[in-house]
Amino acid sequence: MTATGTTVPDDRFHIFDTTLRDGAQREGINLTVADKLAIARHLDDFGVGFIEGGWPGANPRDTEFFARAQAEIDFRHARLVAFGATRKAGVRVEDDPQVAALLASGAPVITLVAKSHDRHVELALRTTLDENLAMVADTVSYLRAQGRRVFVDCEHFFDGYRANPEYAKSVVRAAHQAGAEVVVLCDTNGGMLPAQVQAVVGTVLADTGARLGIHAQDDTGCAVANTLAAVDAGATHVQCTANGYGERVGNANLFPVVAALELKYGRRVLPAGSLAEMTRISHAIAELVNLTPATHQPYVGVSAFAHKAGLHASAIKVDPDLYQHIDPELVGNSMRMLVSDMAGRASVELKGKELGIDFGGDRELIGRVVDRIKERELAGYTYEAADASFELLVREELEQRQTGRARRFFRLESWRTIVENRPDGSHANEATVKVRAKGERIVATAEGNGPVDALDRALRVALERIYPQLATMELVDYRVRILEGKHGTQSTTRVLVSTTDGQGEWSTVGVAENVIAASWQALDDAYAYGLRRAGAEPTE
Amino acid sequence: MTATGTTVPDDRFHIFDTTLRDGAQREGINLTVADKLAIARHLDDFGVGFIEGGWPGANPRDTEFFARAQAEIDFRHARLVAFGATRKAGVRVEDDPQVAALLASGAPVITLVAKSHDRHVELALRTTLDENLAMVADTVSYLRAQGRRVFVDCEHFFDGYRANPEYAKSVVRAAHQAGAEVVVLCDTNGGMLPAQVQAVVGTVLADTGARLGIHAQDDTGCAVANTLAAVDAGATHVQCTANGYGERVGNANLFPVVAALELKYGRRVLPAGSLAEMTRISHAIAELVNLTPATHQPYVGVSAFAHKAGLHASAIKVDPDLYQHIDPELVGNSMRMLVSDMAGRASVELKGKELGIDFGGDRELIGRVVDRIKERELAGYTYEAADASFELLVREELEQRQTGRARRFFRLESWRTIVENRPDGSHANEATVKVRAKGERIVATAEGNGPVDALDRALRVALERIYPQLATMELVDYRVRILEGKHGTQSTTRVLVSTTDGQGEWSTVGVAENVIAASWQALDDAYAYGLRRAGAEPTE
Repeated sequence: MTATGTTVPDDRFHIFDTTLRDGAQREGINLTVADKLAIARHLDDFGVGFIEGGWPGANPRDTEFFARAQAEIDFRHARLVAFGATRKAGVRVEDDPQVAALLASGAPVITLVAKSHDRHVELALRTTLDENLAMVADTVSYLRAQGRRVFVDCEHFFDGYRANPEYAKSVVRAAHQAGAEVVVLCDTNGGMLPAQVQAVVGTVLADTGARLGIHAQDDTGCAVANTLAAVDAGATHVQCTANGYGERVGNANLFPVVAALELKYGRRVLPAGSLAEMTRISHAIAELVNLTPATHQPYVGVSAFAHKAGLHASAIKVDPDLYQHIDPELVGNSMRMLVSDMAGRASVELKGKELGIDFGGDRELIGRVVDRIKERELAGYTYEAADASFELLVREELEQRQTGRARRFFRLESWRTIVENRPDGSHANEATVKVRAKGERIVATAEGNGPVDALDRALRVALERIYPQLATMELVDYRVRILEGKHGTQSTTRVLVSTTDGQGEWSTVGVAENVIAASWQALDDAYAYGLRRAGAEPTE
Repeated sequence: MTATGTTVPDDRFHIFDTTLRDGAQREGINLTVADKLAIARHLDDFGVGFIEGGWPGANPRDTEFFARAQAEIDFRHARLVAFGATRKAGVRVEDDPQVAALLASGAPVITLVAKSHDRHVELALRTTLDENLAMVADTVSYLRAQGRRVFVDCEHFFDGYRANPEYAKSVVRAAHQAGAEVVVLCDTNGGMLPAQVQAVVGTVLADTGARLGIHAQDDTGCAVANTLAAVDAGATHVQCTANGYGERVGNANLFPVVAALELKYGRRVLPAGSLAEMTRISHAIAELVNLTPATHQPYVGVSAFAHKAGLHASAIKVDPDLYQHIDPELVGNSMRMLVSDMAGRASVELKGKELGIDFGGDRELIGRVVDRIKERELAGYTYEAADASFELLVREELEQRQTGRARRFFRLESWRTIVENRPDGSHANEATVKVRAKGERIVATAEGNGPVDALDRALRVALERIYPQLATMELVDYRVRILEGKHGTQSTTRVLVSTTDGQGEWSTVGVAENVIAASWQALDDAYAYGLRRAGAEPTE
């Protein structure tokens, strides 16, 4: 209960993260102990007050996590929380091995899940309503006596309150009177709307006097709003997950909740400076759970401050603040102008400015760039996610206009890839490229993990003597999308490649009727861009 | 103003869809006229009251859309709406070509966008506050006199209300008094929270007496809740987009808004039976805009009623209603049990039941299936999105146990693909497969649009004489994901393939170190599953 200045969040309002426990229930997420440790570090950096790490004793992975987290992580802001259940019906709390595992985890804070819906007590726990109250009271008292802080999650609280409000409240009272520091009202099935949440939280607060928290699921698309509605009604503890990961639709998303509290409510809930790290931390956690960061996520999505319409684009030149609800830098994001055929010259000019390209008011040049973009978008290219291909196209047009020729680093003659599945089940991947650079004709062959990898290696083998800068470049992401053929045309393949040189990362695009040819184009752009970036001398 | 029974929605409450206009502002969406017509048909089927089709006159595509929509679509529920601006400053409304284009579109309803934020009037329109009021009044009166229904979108209303509430309200009054049927308060920058929306809408309604609508953007993650908060305050017109598509983060999502109104508020806003089509229509529109349907979308996402945890899985067997906020069939969705290593025997059993597989309580068999799933998931396979591969694995285990051997349709000896980029820039894609089926050894070669297509064709060439059922099967979706190597291991490629036989669709998965080998596995499963489904005679 101490507030120790700016680094440890004030205990009067809890930001409680359950990404590692409830968030891991999301379809498609499967975390190793190493993943969980890495995510816990990010959450602690971000400055949440509590990190619920899992259910020690329920599976070996969670038990290992608690041991290693306490040994390996020097938490600066967060307290580690173990999640578990109240004692079993008819068992003394001292004799319940699940409760013992919670203590054995060493976590200073324990969240107990308790049933607060009468039908769940009867059908799922198969015990009496009174025994359930005793289970809550006994387990809270016992853990408090062992020196732990205890929060109680009232599972299915809102549905339970609708079915039997008196019983639901009696569970809150039992937890509160036994010494639970916070009683968390959970919308486990996620069916609530904000006005209902606000009314119930207000009534329960008035009737029980317990300190209340909120745990919202997003099944109505209102988890963030439900969390804020509970805060409006007096809740002072919010349970969220990074990027809203969680079972079914997901949980209340940590990032818009803290952004609303800090930026809209003016309530300081994170250490100073943390909010500006939000976009980076959101994306880092997405990478760790092996999901692409959600592009349209509030505040932190790459599209969150992206403007497309030609109409807006020209007005934004007058005053960007008229067109965004907050300064994106407050959350570590930035405004982007999108190049698309709905946008016109104004967006291309703004995008150019963003990339440091001066068109010098050359309307014919801008017109030609707009035309080329339109033509290529019609063929399936997208420049919204391939800034480097866009920049390359613009710079080549600019050079063409200024000097009569665009700088090139090599010319392709041909390439070939062979993938073979041998009778013994092993695979061979081989690629050959024939290129010309600095007056030489070079033929190179390489093997790889796959045909694109082999092609990438063959190109490097061919060029690395002439361009040693290639050694620093590495492919870090590779995405393939099949574009449906429309109106009877044949489908095409779009490849997006991200490349790094250790200093920065850039994205390029290729479109062709097959995946290898599309990959080649994206690779070609990636290296052309990288060599320009590295200041390499062009071949012509 | 007529309510004509069950097919045309009651005019007292408007479901206004702007997918085709505001939704098309989403990063990555680029609609052809044919796309827009197809989406309009789906929206009309769904039963929205109004479909805003675009801005006639602003671009040729939108002008063409209005002409064709009225000629080609027999709207059963929706009225077509043209979007445009009030007259230009200092121009007579009769002389404004943009206003003339709105009339020329033939749309029976026109939405006019009007500025209601004083700074926008001054900086973006560059006119006086009074002239802006005259522009609103003149344009509304003129269009009303021409027999059109008129709605007015007050752009940036909430920010404008904060800056200058009296001026913002005077714009509402000007529109209302000139004959606008609804004045729509727009949170154009999306920065509002529900409590604020509710307060502002309530005050404006009381002070102006105008019929109010709401247009919410999702920048705080609260667009659905903001829309409902406005309804709570008395708004009777909601503007939404299918799947929440829209600029930046997006717009209020039509589907959770109508589901909340119908299922939580008990307010009939769609024709009878429409809600049960919601999942299908959501996915169909996603396909038309060429985006993967969002898996975690409320109500309609494939994960919206998916249960993962082993704990829940066993309780769900007792009573599914305890674990979902609505019956998924109400919105055309269904409950799914997920197979993952967090789940145990209970989920595998339930999943089996869903697929019509009877394990007959054979615990050893279930244990073996669970073990194989775990082992393959560790290698990067995912069965959550590949039901057919899961079913194949289970059925093969079952046959192995019952008869000592699983049914197989062919055995692979080897395959090879060659992709070549020739000096003239053209591509050659060739594949050879060597297989055994019904005692024969068959070698077949085919060309294709790409290496996987060539492989697919070669396999069909090899087997079509023996299995004529293959002729009905077609690959309809193909997705590739690169899985990051963790802990120093090499990255792998996962391919998901969807196949149809015209009657149904099934999904299969392959994982390997390269994209062609992973594709082969997914194809192998796809045809093995399809041949079982078609009742083909196995080779052994």
